Amino acid sequence: MGNHIGEILRVTTFGESHGPGIGAVVDGCPAGLEISMDEIQKDLDRRKPGQSHITTQRKESDTVKILSGVFEGKSQGTPIALFIPNEDAKSADYDHLRETFRPSHADFTYQQKYGLRDYRGGGRSSARTTAAVVAAGAIAKMILKHEGIMIGAFVTQVGTIQSSVFNSLAASRNPAINLDGLLKISESNIVRCPDEESAARMIELIEQVRKAGDTIGGVVSCVVKHCPVGLGEPLFDKLQADLAKAIFSINAVHGFEYGSGFAGAAMRGSENNDPYLIEADRVKTKTNFSGGMQGGISNGMDIYFNVAFKPVATIVAAQESVNLSGESVEVKGRGRHDPCVVPRAVPIVEAMAAIILADHWLRNRAARM
Amino acid sequence: MGNHIGEILRVTTFGESHGPGIGAVVDGCPAGLEISMDEIQKDLDRRKPGQSHITTQRKESDTVKILSGVFEGKSQGTPIALFIPNEDAKSADYDHLRETFRPSHADFTYQQKYGLRDYRGGGRSSARTTAAVVAAGAIAKMILKHEGIMIGAFVTQVGTIQSSVFNSLAASRNPAINLDGLLKISESNIVRCPDEESAARMIELIEQVRKAGDTIGGVVSCVVKHCPVGLGEPLFDKLQADLAKAIFSINAVHGFEYGSGFAGAAMRGSENNDPYLIEADRVKTKTNFSGGMQGGISNGMDIYFNVAFKPVATIVAAQESVNLSGESVEVKGRGRHDPCVVPRAVPIVEAMAAIILADHWLRNRAARM
Amino acid sequence: MGNHIGEILRVTTFGESHGPGIGAVVDGCPAGLEISMDEIQKDLDRRKPGQSHITTQRKESDTVKILSGVFEGKSQGTPIALFIPNEDAKSADYDHLRETFRPSHADFTYQQKYGLRDYRGGGRSSARTTAAVVAAGAIAKMILKHEGIMIGAFVTQVGTIQSSVFNSLAASRNPAINLDGLLKISESNIVRCPDEESAARMIELIEQVRKAGDTIGGVVSCVVKHCPVGLGEPLFDKLQADLAKAIFSINAVHGFEYGSGFAGAAMRGSENNDPYLIEADRVKTKTNFSGGMQGGISNGMDIYFNVAFKPVATIVAAQESVNLSGESVEVKGRGRHDPCVVPRAVPIVEAMAAIILADHWLRNRAARM
Amino acid sequence: MGNHIGEILRVTTFGESHGPGIGAVVDGCPAGLEISMDEIQKDLDRRKPGQSHITTQRKESDTVKILSGVFEGKSQGTPIALFIPNEDAKSADYDHLRETFRPSHADFTYQQKYGLRDYRGGGRSSARTTAAVVAAGAIAKMILKHEGIMIGAFVTQVGTIQSSVFNSLAASRNPAINLDGLLKISESNIVRCPDEESAARMIELIEQVRKAGDTIGGVVSCVVKHCPVGLGEPLFDKLQADLAKAIFSINAVHGFEYGSGFAGAAMRGSENNDPYLIEADRVKTKTNFSGGMQGGISNGMDIYFNVAFKPVATIVAAQESVNLSGESVEVKGRGRHDPCVVPRAVPIVEAMAAIILADHWLRNRAARM
Repeated sequence: MGNHIGEILRVTTFGESHGPGIGAVVDGCPAGLEISMDEIQKDLDRRKPGQSHITTQRKESDTVKILSGVFEGKSQGTPIALFIPNEDAKSADYDHLRETFRPSHADFTYQQKYGLRDYRGGGRSSARTTAAVVAAGAIAKMILKHEGIMIGAFVTQVGTIQSSVFNSLAASRNPAINLDGLLKISESNIVRCPDEESAARMIELIEQVRKAGDTIGGVVSCVVKHCPVGLGEPLFDKLQADLAKAIFSINAVHGFEYGSGFAGAAMRGSENNDPYLIEADRVKTKTNFSGGMQGGISNGMDIYFNVAFKPVATIVAAQESVNLSGESVEVKGRGRHDPCVVPRAVPIVEAMAAIILADHWLRNRAARM
Repeated sequence: MGNHIGEILRVTTFGESHGPGIGAVVDGCPAGLEISMDEIQKDLDRRKPGQSHITTQRKESDTVKILSGVFEGKSQGTPIALFIPNEDAKSADYDHLRETFRPSHADFTYQQKYGLRDYRGGGRSSARTTAAVVAAGAIAKMILKHEGIMIGAFVTQVGTIQSSVFNSLAASRNPAINLDGLLKISESNIVRCPDEESAARMIELIEQVRKAGDTIGGVVSCVVKHCPVGLGEPLFDKLQADLAKAIFSINAVHGFEYGSGFAGAAMRGSENNDPYLIEADRVKTKTNFSGGMQGGISNGMDIYFNVAFKPVATIVAAQESVNLSGESVEVKGRGRHDPCVVPRAVPIVEAMAAIILADHWLRNRAARM
Repeated sequence: MGNHIGEILRVTTFGESHGPGIGAVVDGCPAGLEISMDEIQKDLDRRKPGQSHITTQRKESDTVKILSGVFEGKSQGTPIALFIPNEDAKSADYDHLRETFRPSHADFTYQQKYGLRDYRGGGRSSARTTAAVVAAGAIAKMILKHEGIMIGAFVTQVGTIQSSVFNSLAASRNPAINLDGLLKISESNIVRCPDEESAARMIELIEQVRKAGDTIGGVVSCVVKHCPVGLGEPLFDKLQADLAKAIFSINAVHGFEYGSGFAGAAMRGSENNDPYLIEADRVKTKTNFSGGMQGGISNGMDIYFNVAFKPVATIVAAQESVNLSGESVEVKGRGRHDPCVVPRAVPIVEAMAAIILADHWLRNRAARM
Repeated sequence: MGNHIGEILRVTTFGESHGPGIGAVVDGCPAGLEISMDEIQKDLDRRKPGQSHITTQRKESDTVKILSGVFEGKSQGTPIALFIPNEDAKSADYDHLRETFRPSHADFTYQQKYGLRDYRGGGRSSARTTAAVVAAGAIAKMILKHEGIMIGAFVTQVGTIQSSVFNSLAASRNPAINLDGLLKISESNIVRCPDEESAARMIELIEQVRKAGDTIGGVVSCVVKHCPVGLGEPLFDKLQADLAKAIFSINAVHGFEYGSGFAGAAMRGSENNDPYLIEADRVKTKTNFSGGMQGGISNGMDIYFNVAFKPVATIVAAQESVNLSGESVEVKGRGRHDPCVVPRAVPIVEAMAAIILADHWLRNRAARM
C-alpha cells in the first residue's frame, strides 16, 4: 500500500527513523549490471546528515549493506535488497511528542489514519526514509549510466535568492545545458548551487535563518541529458506524470514544473512552441520549452524540471498545537533538524528521477514488435 | 502499459481522436452506487468542444453510452464500460500531417517510439481522449458526493491576467474556502473564472489571441472540500503525489503546486507552518499552507492546488519543422483548435482529482484492522 | 478490482450476459503488429454457442468490433478495445431467479458480496464473458505467431472417457508432441478430441447426458510449442503460476496440472527427472516430465498442461435451494445451457495461455542489460 | 519483476540460498495488529531443515529479525521487513556446479534467462527462499486469526501411499471438516500426515527412498475454516485463481485442485452440485464439491485444496546432463537435500494460502459503498 514505485524496475522501501534501520528492495534490475558499492555510498554521503554546518548535526554514517541480488559484483536479475542501520537515533528527544502533534508535520495525520504512530523522530514520515531512496536510485543511475544517460540536480533557489541558472534553464536553447559544468560548481559548495555568487548568499541566508531558530524553503532543479527518444507511456504514465509523482513523494515538496512550467501559463503558443530543426542528422528543437518531453514521451532533448520545497516544519519558536486528548498545547522544536532542506535534497531528487527513467527505459523495450 | 490509473478504483481508457470513438472502463466502483447518466453528461458538456465562441468549433455531442456494470440504475461491483462515439472527425484536415511533425505536438515522439502513428487529429495523443477521463471522473464524483466530498475547479489565470482568487487560495485561512460561491460565478461565464472582473478581461484576451491566430496558456485551480482525514498512502502514494501524476497526465500541463507551492520556497517555517487549533471539537489548522495534506495524508482541511497549462501548440503562423524523411519543412495550423485550453480543462482537472480521491478513499479502508 | 490480467500485455474485460454486450481492452500490445479480424473471428466461432448439437442453442453471432488501437491494419501501441454486442439475450428466462440462488452457481456469492446482483443469465459470472477473453487472446496469439510460438488445446477427457493422448502427453518424450497432427483431428470433430475413437464415445456420452437433463465434466489439455527459453519471472510470477491463475479464472475449472502433475506425486526423482542431452546443437531434455518449465522459467521444450472442468451446474432436475429471504425453495434448470462445457472451452484455454505467454515474452525483454 | 504477491497485503521477498540471508517486506498490513514473534518463529521451525531424520541435515536456526513496521508490539500500517540470515551455507559443495546444469533444477533456465547465475545452492531458485514466505505468511495468519479464520495443511499422499483423509475431503459433507482434530494428529508425526497409520507407512517409504539415494513426491492438502462469504474478485482474481498462482509459485508444485478437482471431470452435474440448505439461520451447502468457492468467491463453507509436489530433483545416482560449454556431462547429487519435500512444505502451503486470503479479506472491504 504505497511503499513501492516503478513498474518493471520496482523499488519497495521500508524502515522508520528510530527503528533498527531503513532499506529498499530493488526488483527488476536487469541481470549483468556491474554494481558499484562506491557509487551507492557516494550518493548516500551527499544526502547524509552532518555533512556541513548548514545541515542537521545528527550523525549517521549511512553505511549500506547489500543483502541479496548481487553475486561476483553483478546484478543477478533477482531482487537487490539494501539495508542501512540506524545509528544515532536519540529517541528520548521525542518523548514529549508521544501525545502532541507538531504543526505541519505528519504526526496528526498518521495518528488519525492508523489509530497509532511511532512518534520517535517522525517514524515512517521522517525524511530519513529518503536514504533508502537514494541507495535504490544509485542502482538506477548505474543502469542509466550504462546507456549514457546522465542525471544531475542542484539548488537554484533558497528563500528569495534565485540563481541565474533558474531562468537560463527555463529559456534553455541550443547549445544544450552544460550539466557537467553546472555540477562542477554546485558540488563544490555546501549549498549545492551551480552559481558561486548565489551560493555564497544562500549559505549566508541559511546561517542567518538557523541562528533565528527558523527554517527556509528552496528550489532544486534537475537535468537529464542524453535521454533517448521514446521514454514515457501514454496515457497516464506520461514521463512527466511519473516524474512528478516520484518527486512529490519526497518530504516537503510543494511544487513541480518542467519546461516552461508555470511561466508557460503566461506565454503564447508562438513563443512557447519549439520549432524542429535538423542538426548533424538528428532531429532537434530550436528552443526547449517542452523540457524534453512531448505528449508524455521524451524527445531526445535535455529534460529539466524544478522542484519547490517548503521550509522545514521544525522551528525553535513556540507554536500553538493540540494533543491526543484534543487539548490546546504549545510545542517547541527539539531534536536535530535542517534549517534548509534543499542542499541534502539534491541527491534525493536525482534518485527519484533515476528510478523513473530507468523504469521507463525498460518499459520502452516493449513498445514495438 | 500506461492506459490505466488508480489502484482499487482503476480507470482504463482507450480510443483515438479519429477512430470509432473513445471510452473508459471503470473497475472497482463499489456496488450499490446510484449512477446518474445526467451527471456524467453534464460534465461532458462542460468539456465538449463548440460550447462557446472561445473554444474550438469541432462539433461533438459527446453522448456517452454505458456498456456494462450498471443494472437497475446501480453499480454492480463489476466494470463499468463507457463509450463515446466520434462524430465530427474531419480526418482529411490532417492528410498533410501524415509525414510531417507539428512543433510541440506529440507527432514526432509517437512516431519515434512506435515506428508508426495515427496522424489523424493527433490519434491517441489528442486531448479528445480526456472526454473518457471526464466520463470516468463523473462516476468517481458520485462516489465522493455520496460521502459528502466535493470537488470544484475554475480558471485563475489566462496569460498574465491572474484572478485575485489565485492568491486568496494560497493564503487560505479559516473560515475555509467558499467553493460553492466561487463555482457559482465561474460556471456562469464562458472562461470559468470565479471573479467576474478577471473573467471579462480573460475572455477579451482569448478573443484577441484567437484573432491573431495565436494561443495562450493559463492556470486552473482546484479545491476539494470535506475530504476526510486519512486519505493518502505513504511512502510513494502520497495523496499529493497521486494527484500530481493524474494531473500531469492531462495534455499541456506543465506545472502543479499545492498549498503554498512555489511561493513556499521563499517562505520561512515560522510563516508557512499551520498551527493547530480546536474548533467545535474538531482539530483544524489556523492557516492552510499545507493545502490540506501533511505527510502525504489529508488532514481534513480544504485541499487546493494549481495547474499550469502551456499555450495550445496549434497556431496559424508558419513554423519550422521536419518530416519523416528528415527534411526541413514548414507547417501551418489547420484543423479546429482552442485558442486557450483552460476553460475546457476545468472539468478534466476535476475528473482526475475525483478519480484519485475516490481511489484513496477506498484504499484507506484497509488502513486499520 | 480483478477485471484485468497481465503485466505488460494487460487485458481488462467488461460486460454481462444480458447487458448491451461484452468487451476487452488490450493494453500493451506492441506497435506494428498486423491485426487480422479473421483470426479473432475464427476463435470466437470456435467458442460461440449453437455451433453443434452438443452445445447450448443460444444463438450469438459473436461479431467483434474493434473500437480503437488499430490503424491501417496495424496495432499502434495504444489500447485495442474490442466489443461484442449481446444479441440473443432472453432475460425473461431468468425472471424466476431474481430471488433464488441456483446450486453451484455464483448467484449466492455475488448477492452476498455485493448486496445486489444482475440475475439475468448469471450477469458477470456467466461464461459468456469468456468471449471477450477469446477475442483478446486472439491478439495475443498473433503476437506469439509472429515469434513462431504455437498454442493448441483439445479435449482429452469427458466423464470417465479418457483419450489415449492424455497419458501420452504426461509421458511425453522426444520426438516432441505433434501438435499439428493432434489439432487436425481435434478440430475435425465437434467434441474437439484429438483421437477419433474417443471422440465418438465422448459425443455419445454427452448426448446421453443431455437427454437425461444432466451435465458432465471433462478435461482440456493444452500444448505450447516453440516457446523460447527464458519466459517466466521468479519468484511469484513463475510461468506455471501465471498460467494456473489465468486458467483458474475460467468458469468451472477445478484443477490444473502441468508436466507430470498429480501423477508426479507418486513418482521417484530417478523416474521424474529429465536428463539433458544435446541435439542439433540445442540443449534438450530426454523426457519432459517438467512440462517445459523449470524453476518457473520455460526451458524450450513443449509446455503442456491439463485443465479439469466440473460438470455444468445447470441441470433439469429439481434441486434444493434457498432464496433471498432465507427460505428453502426448489429450483429447476431453465435457460439454454451446455451439457458439457469442454468442447467450447478449448479456445478459452488457448486464449488464456496465449495472454500469459505473450505477456511473459514481453516481460522477458527486461531480463538482461 | 515477479518478486511480489498480493494487491493490498503485498509481500515482496528477496535473498538467495548462499547470500547474506533471505527476507520479506510485508506492505499493507493494517495498523494495530499485535505481532507475535513466537508465532512467526513457530512456523519457521515447522519449515526449517534438520527438524527430523527424514529432512535435509542442513542446519539453520532460521531466526527472524523484524527490521521495521512494528512498534510497541503492534503493526504501524507501514512495511514490516523481515530478515533471516543464512548460517550454514556450505557453498563449496556447489563449486562443481558452476558450469554444470543439474537435471530438473532451474540451473539451465536461470543461466539462459539471465546470462549468468548464482550457482551456489541454486541461488534464488532454492527452496530456501520459502522461509521468507513462511515468515510473511505468519503475519497474514495473525490477520486472519484476528477475524477467526483458520488455515491448516497436512500431508495426504507420499508416493503411492494416500491417506484416507484425501478422499474424505473430496467428498466432504456437513458436518464440516474437523481441522483441529486433523492437525492434532498431523503435527504429532514427522511426516505431518493426519492419519497415524498412513503416517507410519509414509515415514517408512521416505526412509527407504533416502537409503536408495532417491527422492519421492507427495500431496499436501490444505483447509481454510470460518472464511467469511464474499472473498474473491471476479473476473481474473477469483479466489481459487489467486490461491493457485500462489501455490504454483512454491518450488516443485506440479498440480493444484480444489473441491471435486480432477475427480469432478468424471462426475455429473447431479452428483457434483451442492444443494443449499438453511442451518441455524445460515445458508450452507449439503455437500461441498465446490470447495468453498463459487464463481470465484468464497461461500462460507470450508475451503480445501490439494497440492501435488514432484519428487525432489537432487538424487545420488549419476545423471546425464550438459554444461555451459554445451558438452555432455554426468552429474551426481551432492549438498544436503530432502528425500521428500512434503513434510516441510506444509507450512509453506499454509503461508501462501494465508497471504492470499488476508489480501482478499482486505480487498473485499471495497466491494460495496
